[in-house]
Formats: sequence, C-alpha cells, structure tokens
Amino acid sequence: MNRDTAGRPEDRWVTFRPDIRVLDCTIRDGGLMNDHQFDERVVAAVYRACEEAGIDYMEIGYKASKRIYAPSKFGPWKYCDEDTIRRVVGEGPKTVKLCAMADAERTDYREDILPKTQSVLDVIRVATYIHQIPTAIEMIKDAKEKGYETTVNLMAVSTVQESQLDAALEVLASTDVDTIYLVDSFGTLYSEQIRYLTEKYLRYAKPAGKEVGIHTHDNQQLAFANTIEALIVGANRLDASFAGLGRGAGNCRMELLLGFLHNPKFHIRPLLQCIQEHIEPMRAKLRWGFDIPYMITGQLNRHPREAMEHMEGDGWKDIVAFYDRTVEEE
Amino acid sequence: MNRDTAGRPEDRWVTFRPDIRVLDCTIRDGGLMNDHQFDERVVAAVYRACEEAGIDYMEIGYKASKRIYAPSKFGPWKYCDEDTIRRVVGEGPKTVKLCAMADAERTDYREDILPKTQSVLDVIRVATYIHQIPTAIEMIKDAKEKGYETTVNLMAVSTVQESQLDAALEVLASTDVDTIYLVDSFGTLYSEQIRYLTEKYLRYAKPAGKEVGIHTHDNQQLAFANTIEALIVGANRLDASFAGLGRGAGNCRMELLLGFLHNPKFHIRPLLQCIQEHIEPMRAKLRWGFDIPYMITGQLNRHPREAMEHMEGDGWKDIVAFYDRTVEEE
Repeated sequence: MNRDTAGRPEDRWVTFRPDIRVLDCTIRDGGLMNDHQFDERVVAAVYRACEEAGIDYMEIGYKASKRIYAPSKFGPWKYCDEDTIRRVVGEGPKTVKLCAMADAERTDYREDILPKTQSVLDVIRVATYIHQIPTAIEMIKDAKEKGYETTVNLMAVSTVQESQLDAALEVLASTDVDTIYLVDSFGTLYSEQIRYLTEKYLRYAKPAGKEVGIHTHDNQQLAFANTIEALIVGANRLDASFAGLGRGAGNCRMELLLGFLHNPKFHIRPLLQCIQEHIEPMRAKLRWGFDIPYMITGQLNRHPREAMEHMEGDGWKDIVAFYDRTVEEE
Repeated sequence: MNRDTAGRPEDRWVTFRPDIRVLDCTIRDGGLMNDHQFDERVVAAVYRACEEAGIDYMEIGYKASKRIYAPSKFGPWKYCDEDTIRRVVGEGPKTVKLCAMADAERTDYREDILPKTQSVLDVIRVATYIHQIPTAIEMIKDAKEKGYETTVNLMAVSTVQESQLDAALEVLASTDVDTIYLVDSFGTLYSEQIRYLTEKYLRYAKPAGKEVGIHTHDNQQLAFANTIEALIVGANRLDASFAGLGRGAGNCRMELLLGFLHNPKFHIRPLLQCIQEHIEPMRAKLRWGFDIPYMITGQLNRHPREAMEHMEGDGWKDIVAFYDRTVEEE
C-alpha cells in the first residue's frame, strides 16, 4: 500500500503494512456532541468492540481541568478519572491501549495525570493550537517522564501559515513525543493537500524516529479518503470512529477504514454490532455526520461551531438561510 | 489542478481548468430509486437550478424500450418522450445541454431516438456492459449519424478483467464517440485504483481526440474523492447529482464538486435552494445515500441490489443480519 511498491495498484491491495496502528476516537471526539455524557454501558460496549475488532488504541475522553470545566456541567468522559475508566474496562489484561486527550491550557495535567504505573491509561494525546506549542512541549515532557506514550495533535492546521508550521514541526521533532498528528479540524483539506502536508510531517518526524498520525473530519465527505491518502503516503497512526461519531460532520468511519486495511487481525462484525446496538440509537439526539451546513463551514475553512449551532436549532433544514448568513460574514 | 503544474498544491487551487464540464445526473440515476416517477415540478426545478448554477449538462432520464419496460410500470423519465421533456424545459434557448441514457439491448434506439434536428436532446449516453460493446458501437454510430454528441459509459469496470478492458478501450477509441466514461457502478474502487484506471482511459482516449469522464457511487464514501482524483489526473467530464441522489448510496454530491471547482461560472446557492425545496423532501421515501449495507456490497465489489432490497424492507436497521447473510454468500 505504499506508492513506492512496485507492481500494479491492484496487486498492492493484497498485502498490508504491519506498522499501521488504528485508534478509535468515538467517545473522545463524539463527546463534543453531548458534553461527554455517554452512559457507561455505551463506553463499555465500544471498548469490547475495539477488543474484538482488533483495534489498537481507544481514546476514552479528555483530561480536562475541573477548575475550568465544572463537573456539574459535563459528563465523566471530560475528566476520565481513573476509577471511572476502571469500572468500564475492568481490571483484567488489556489488549487495547487506552488514551486520553489533554488540551493545552485546559488541563491540570501535573496533578490530574498520574504516573503511568498508577494509571489504566497508556497514552496521553496533547492537543494544541500553534500558539500553545510551548505549553504543549511542557505537557509532552511531563507525560513522558510519568511513563506514557505520547502524541501531539496540532489542531486546525488549515489555518496555520506554512512558515509557522515548519517551525512548529521542527520544534516538535526535537521533543520526546512519539507521534505527530496531522489534524484537519475543520474538514477543509482536499486529498492533494493532505498528501503535501503528510509528506512534510514525515520529513520532520521520521529522521527523529517518530510516527505521523492522521485525524480527519467529514465536512466535505473526505474523512475516509484523506485518511487513506495519508496512509498511502506513510502515516502509520490512523484515527477513526464507530459510524463516524465525532464533532459536527464526524470523523473517518472505522468500518470503512477496517474494510480498506488488509491486516487479518481486524474484524468488522463486532464494530457493526456495536454500531447497531449502541451508536446509531444516539443519532437522532446527537445529530453528527455529514450535512450541508458542515460542508459550508468546511468549504470556507471555518470552525464548525456555527454549523453545530444551526443543526441544534429548529430551523436546521433551512440550509439556504445558513448559507446566506455564513457567506455574508466572509 | 493538474499534477504537472508547477508550484505548491495550495497555489494550484487558485486557478481552474476551463475544459472541465459538469454533468448533473440527478433525475437519471435517482430514477433508479423510484422507477423514474419524478413529478414534472421536481424535474423542472432541477433543470432551472442547473441553469442558474452554471452546470453544463443535465441528464434527464433514459431512452428505454417500451416493449421491454411497460409504461404502466415506470414513470416518464424512463422513456424521455420529446413532448414530456419540452413541457418541463420550455421552448426557449437552452444554456444546459440535455442528455438521455440508452442501455445497450434495452432500447429501441433506431426508432425512439429522433434526428437531433427534431429533438430537444443534445447528448446520447450509451451505457454498456463489456459483453455488449458490439451493440454499443452500433448505438454510437446511430446517434452520431443523427447528429448527437455521444458518450459511452462502460459499466461495472471493477468486474472487468484488465486484458478485456484494454481491448474494449482500444475498440471504443476507434469509434466516433466523444467521451469515454470510467464508471464505478458498485462504488468499490479506491482512489489509487481510480487514478490507475483514469490514466489508462486517457492513454486510449486522448490520442483519438476524445475526453474521459468519471461517474462514481458513494458506497464507501469515496464518490467525491474519486471524482476529484480522476479530475486531477485529467478527466474533463464529471458526473454529480443534487444531494448525491442516485442509485443506492448515490453519486458524487454536486454541491461538494462545485465547491471544489474554482471556475467562477459555477454557483452553489441555486443548488442548495433546489435541494432544500425539492430533493431532501424525497429522502424519507427514496432512502438513497451512504448506509452500511451499501458499504458492505461496495467492499465486496458486488452489485448494490441486495443492499437496496434490504434498505426497502422493515428490517433495514439490522445491519449485522445483512452482513452475515452477504458474507456467507461470498
């Protein structure tokens, strides 16, 4: 599945790249649609399905500051307390590595993230905007010293000037972080841009012994296409979610991704079972997934928040009104 | 937007390729979901929206044999009688070229397709499976002699042996047809395969002075991605439909495609207006668009008919049952 491999494209699908790892972000990214209020039963079902499907990592929520975000307003997956996670995953041996995301400047990471030996978590994912990178570097250092695998997710790269991006990647490549993620927060990038950026990320990451990851949003129905584009170019860490559950238009669908990957360790049926029993029943309320308002913000390279507000309202079918209002603001 | 163009990918989006033509297939492909029973009001609204949006071609239905398909069972867009079309588009000057599709062996083309001087149609699209190509060649000849622009749409290319495909393309390149279409009928092809096939089609078509077109289905949420992949490689005829309305998982969404094309002659707002007022109100009944049963047939390179039957039934939410049944048949 690498462009450098000889032979006809048809033949390349027969093999697989064993260094690819798949990360499920259903509960973490989907939590942005329900203030992280998932029932423990749902989280447990996703965890079991990840186990059975052969998924490598599951991102179970955020490590958010309780000073900044009052626990009266958000569900447990905003904070991922150790005892909450343990209730859901049990105490037995884990085949799925557990991840939590910590947003730069929105986390009390020094206190809330325990040493790895005391935690059920395996990976800390540091989410940062470009201007927060100095903080992100402190967070990476803290998590590595505590014994975690780490990723850094540089958000909204579509809004970053290229010279700044190069500087950021150079700095991040000099840290101890294990994976640098290309993140299309607004779902605005086309496949050619994904290819260009993945190649850039790889140029910084690979010589430093780091992996590159990809995290997409489906505002232009390119989440899956862009994920496999990055994979073909060389990204080895792939985010996806059950039925695409995630903020706004949602993420790359895990069931599409596993269909593409030819590693026999992956199984699609447990995914479908979980989607049918636990994920789809939430759709009417959470209303994630491609819709035209999300497309419009994606086309304009804008944060989906206006589209999310529109979709929550009664007039969500009035896409022309949303278009007129949004274009006028440009 | 051509890979050969110098400069960073970001810069290439600023320009556009003036030789690109966009074809709306909403009524023709969507007709496969309602036996071509669209209200004339809906067809007229799509036609007006195509005019206002700057779309080049509108495919308004089939020229199907009334001997084979009884008019008591199908709507008017299965036959596209001249007077029916004229009622909808009016008699004034047209800015949108009108197309009809004729399926090899399923059409009385010699009688039912009038000389162009007597017809409101501009383009005859010949749809053919690989084994019907001798018939398709007769149909192309007939349509060209009658004065029409023609395309040939070689169906279900994902099931064709490569040596046969090469032979077919060589024969088609020797005809008078204007455009040869790459058609992913089952929505099974990944972008790399689309690239490989588009390059192959271009190698046969371009020296013969012909264009290459692309027609996709969204079974794996790759309809839009694959359309722009083919476009980037050199396909100049692009099929899409309003809100993706088309058989099963549907087609490439026109609103996504126009958002990608930077030619200022295209306008997205008339599209959105028509989608909101005329297309989306049909969704509950027609139930087109991506869903997991369509994904499963796409992943297996199978005709979507079983998925369509499943989606019509009461148990359409039972995707695990569909998966088990379908995989068992493999």
